[in-house]
Amino acid sequence: MPDNGRAVVEPDVVRVSVAEVLAAQARLRRYLSTTPLHYAERFGVWLKLENLQRTGSYKVRGALNAMLAGLERGDDRPVICASAGNHAQGVAWSAHRLGLPAITVMPHGAPATKIAGVAHWGATVRQQGQSYDEAYAFARELAAQNDYRFLSAFDDPDVIAGQGTVGIEIAAHAPDVVIVPIGGGGLASGVALALKSQGVRVVGAQVEGVDSMARAVRGDVEEIDPVPTLADGVRVKIPGYITRRLCASLLDDIVIVREAELRETLVRLALEEHIIAEGAGALALAAGRRVAGKRKCAVVSGGNIDASVLSTLLSEVRPRPPRKPRRRNGERLRNARALADASAAPNAATPPRPAIAHQVIAEEESSW
Amino acid sequence: MPDNGRAVVEPDVVRVSVAEVLAAQARLRRYLSTTPLHYAERFGVWLKLENLQRTGSYKVRGALNAMLAGLERGDDRPVICASAGNHAQGVAWSAHRLGLPAITVMPHGAPATKIAGVAHWGATVRQQGQSYDEAYAFARELAAQNDYRFLSAFDDPDVIAGQGTVGIEIAAHAPDVVIVPIGGGGLASGVALALKSQGVRVVGAQVEGVDSMARAVRGDVEEIDPVPTLADGVRVKIPGYITRRLCASLLDDIVIVREAELRETLVRLALEEHIIAEGAGALALAAGRRVAGKRKCAVVSGGNIDASVLSTLLSEVRPRPPRKPRRRNGERLRNARALADASAAPNAATPPRPAIAHQVIAEEESSW
Repeated sequence: MPDNGRAVVEPDVVRVSVAEVLAAQARLRRYLSTTPLHYAERFGVWLKLENLQRTGSYKVRGALNAMLAGLERGDDRPVICASAGNHAQGVAWSAHRLGLPAITVMPHGAPATKIAGVAHWGATVRQQGQSYDEAYAFARELAAQNDYRFLSAFDDPDVIAGQGTVGIEIAAHAPDVVIVPIGGGGLASGVALALKSQGVRVVGAQVEGVDSMARAVRGDVEEIDPVPTLADGVRVKIPGYITRRLCASLLDDIVIVREAELRETLVRLALEEHIIAEGAGALALAAGRRVAGKRKCAVVSGGNIDASVLSTLLSEVRPRPPRKPRRRNGERLRNARALADASAAPNAATPPRPAIAHQVIAEEESSW
Repeated sequence: MPDNGRAVVEPDVVRVSVAEVLAAQARLRRYLSTTPLHYAERFGVWLKLENLQRTGSYKVRGALNAMLAGLERGDDRPVICASAGNHAQGVAWSAHRLGLPAITVMPHGAPATKIAGVAHWGATVRQQGQSYDEAYAFARELAAQNDYRFLSAFDDPDVIAGQGTVGIEIAAHAPDVVIVPIGGGGLASGVALALKSQGVRVVGAQVEGVDSMARAVRGDVEEIDPVPTLADGVRVKIPGYITRRLCASLLDDIVIVREAELRETLVRLALEEHIIAEGAGALALAAGRRVAGKRKCAVVSGGNIDASVLSTLLSEVRPRPPRKPRRRNGERLRNARALADASAAPNAATPPRPAIAHQVIAEEESSW
């Protein structure tokens, strides 16, 4: 019973609530402006464009909130992190803005664009180990030896609260369901905290074979060996302790996306919406067709993709054309008249027709 | 004298003013939402993202305004246009929304993505001739024979007023200078109408060898033979009659951009800002480094670029890295301490350094 007079020891997980997300929003307002919400007409989905965020991904929100919250508590130690890329860029940018020293440890093989992004903002880059885990162990060792502040990419209340500000910004546009990509679970946890109290459904998206969170919420917390994927940003072996609990209690569903769907969605985003998403950034939209909703919103979490990867995708992937829009009332008849007129035009022995035939996508995909 | 009692016959050019632009804004509000203004941090320039506009370019504004204004005047004839692509897409989308029949005449060799965009919205596509001029002549002939309404891509007061709504939206963000790409001059005229009365400088941008407007405002109205350029959307032999006069009287300057600068800017936009612009869409930003201003805004006019062209650019163009940001007060010293600490870390016999060396761009390009 809560009224038995004994102090209840609250684990970290309980200390993150929508109140912390709102506090984060107040902190970040001075540094980051709201990212646009764009309606992707041919997908029928609203997109929260975190690829237009400073450093090219939402990660800067959590990093900056954690540093600002730290400074409020009097903690101005140098910050160190281990990251496959986007968290490191967020840490580097935030450290630059706040005048804090930052060290980022990245595994060999991290995308060149992400490494360049970190170096650009003046943070120290250490490449260590072949995987995130080796980089993580090294960063932890460095932090312990030098009394640096180690900043987790997702399993930290301040970081989760910062990522949750994405949800607060989306809430203003009153969606009925929001889809977020899941790696460690920081974004999903924060957004769910922000939106569940407002009655918005929150659905996570993971890639087939990189589904550690989907397993964890079912109770299987074994470390997985993630398959290679375009979505390097969500390639996590084991989700966070805090985020696992938050996702299990707050998410309405987790949708698993096939790699081919991810590639096609990324290319369609580029060609039809003129938006560059990295693999993880296209993940939520790729899951969108399996999510029911009247006003769906997918978070395009980031856009840091190497030029060579994007170039190859653009030349190799040939997406199916989008479904034709429905005709409006009364229009069919009038257009028919116009076509009849056009046939009577000069050089129109054969009736004019579209230069490119469009395949009509089956009705089961009508949500697209 | 105006008070001599005789009616003054006003040519078309006088009938377009900021009042028509505001009327256009009121008309379009129901159909088109405001496009985002994005701060491109590494360029130091605000970007008006018309590549996120419906149909992927600002052209839909002018087309829709002209059709709505026509309907207000009782003109519901089928609409026909000649266009290298974006105007045709704007006409097709608007006709679909309003239930009007539309015929678009495009020259052979128009980008596949633009042709597909027109067909997508159910308009009739005629490919005719090898150049815009041949398509134009054919469309005129068809219009005369069938009593269709011919809709110019730029030399029409309603179209100019529609494009000017871009300027009204930008004005809310109080820039001191706005840079716009110039082809026929519709966008430049409209934006200048919207902004000059508010004390904002408006500068046009053209590609070397495709500078018909720059010549025209100097009094040289000879038709030019434009060189091939990535910016197919602004490849115009001779600017409009109305737009020429408006640009001559309203523009503060026209900057000429080299093709190589255009290509580099387009690729940097993709890799650093995660924004896909077509050639003409990157033109204003490419001109930005030659324009002085404290709060510069460049219009990214469109994003309809073929996948193969973008793929080739991404694999061939290697842009110089952006200039490093300046350190903030007191930061240098603290960072120095952090680096010293890091050197004492394990495995740190050699001091850590960025994995990718960044070339510092010369000071004369400091506006970037």
